[in-house]
Amino acid sequence: MDIILNENERIDDLEWKDLKIIQNSEWFCFGIDSVLISDFAKDIKKGSIVADFGSGTGIISILLSKKIEPKKILEFEIQKDVAEMAQKSIELNNLENIIEVKNINLKEIGKHFEKNYFDAIVTNPPYKKLNTGLINDSENKLISRHEIMCSLDEWIKTSFDMLKDKGEFYMVHRPDRLVDIINCMRQNKIEPKIIRFVYPKINKKPNLVLIKGVKNGRSSVTIKEPLVVYEENGEYTNEILEIYHKKKGN
Amino acid sequence: MDIILNENERIDDLEWKDLKIIQNSEWFCFGIDSVLISDFAKDIKKGSIVADFGSGTGIISILLSKKIEPKKILEFEIQKDVAEMAQKSIELNNLENIIEVKNINLKEIGKHFEKNYFDAIVTNPPYKKLNTGLINDSENKLISRHEIMCSLDEWIKTSFDMLKDKGEFYMVHRPDRLVDIINCMRQNKIEPKIIRFVYPKINKKPNLVLIKGVKNGRSSVTIKEPLVVYEENGEYTNEILEIYHKKKGN
Repeated sequence: MDIILNENERIDDLEWKDLKIIQNSEWFCFGIDSVLISDFAKDIKKGSIVADFGSGTGIISILLSKKIEPKKILEFEIQKDVAEMAQKSIELNNLENIIEVKNINLKEIGKHFEKNYFDAIVTNPPYKKLNTGLINDSENKLISRHEIMCSLDEWIKTSFDMLKDKGEFYMVHRPDRLVDIINCMRQNKIEPKIIRFVYPKINKKPNLVLIKGVKNGRSSVTIKEPLVVYEENGEYTNEILEIYHKKKGN
Repeated sequence: MDIILNENERIDDLEWKDLKIIQNSEWFCFGIDSVLISDFAKDIKKGSIVADFGSGTGIISILLSKKIEPKKILEFEIQKDVAEMAQKSIELNNLENIIEVKNINLKEIGKHFEKNYFDAIVTNPPYKKLNTGLINDSENKLISRHEIMCSLDEWIKTSFDMLKDKGEFYMVHRPDRLVDIINCMRQNKIEPKIIRFVYPKINKKPNLVLIKGVKNGRSSVTIKEPLVVYEENGEYTNEILEIYHKKKGN
């Protein structure tokens, strides 16, 4: 197979099931948030058609392809050059039969797909509100990090439109947006059903939140036990090692 | 001082600053939730006028009277016999200058007090929605546990009306109502600003949530580090011991 790497592109080994991913060192590189949301979504039913909204490098879809038994995973990435890089990662992993990339603006997804099409949506959207925070990134990083192309509200509204009834919505986000997220989800009839906070250490504030919602779900949410990343001594906790498919001491 | 105890009433020693409380063994007795919300609210400013909505035995107000330096704390309790018992606890602790009980239905608070009257409201409302869960309690327990006299929405709406602009709202509740609570607070313009989950053990789901809201506050919430009640070995954690003003081994 001939995969041609562009300038600043590199192949990273995911050290699990022989998976690899191409990343561009000048753009947004995946972090623990994508790894955690892939794992959080691992109960998606066999045979599901899954969408990954704002898929970036495609890390979520690639990991998910080996955690669940999907019929199809569709990556949606608005940035043409990022989508092209993601396509190369799919080929590199021989996942063309499972994963496809769509270089589509989510606002226009209705032109390409019928409503109520997906069994599940998994997403790691931009965290920052438009016009907030420091903006000194490259254009690519800017689009990946800020709600420039699509607000959280549009993101969730589109998810509602595209999910089947009782379809599942999995999102990772920042805890300081929790009130916005919960309001937005309920307004758009994706009821939050499971929430799990990710704490860097047990005595620290959480820096990530994992949320599962269900389209037209009944009101009542389960807050899960804390997901703690580091032990007091700075080593990964056992749960994080399991999520990374690593053993203690590796 | 002559405090006359009715049938089933007993005096419990709070083992801190010589405080005591009268409880009726047939009614709703206070739990860790009231102790935690009193502590969570301890940054209320000196000289504040504070309301305790649905005050029951008066435990929150009694603890709070020694944690903050309030101008006044007003207990609001709809059940006449419970309010009378709470009055005796105030007298027993010589707190008549600080705490008053009002045997008023919150729905009618506007007849007795002007709007925007309180600097802070601290509350441990009934947890259960009307017509949900097992109902085999006495009438008193029923009113204390279920939203019979006042729904969560009315509770929060009334809090908005009665708080000053930027006034503080402190509530303890059940995590499974988090989505309802957050939606209700934002709709009623009490913005959730600080949320802390209480986990029985570090690897368990939380069973309580502490929330601070601010009337007309700006959107952005801080989720605090976990408040864990028990160590692995079943002993109280240091933080819980501190909240109970106890030392290890006591």
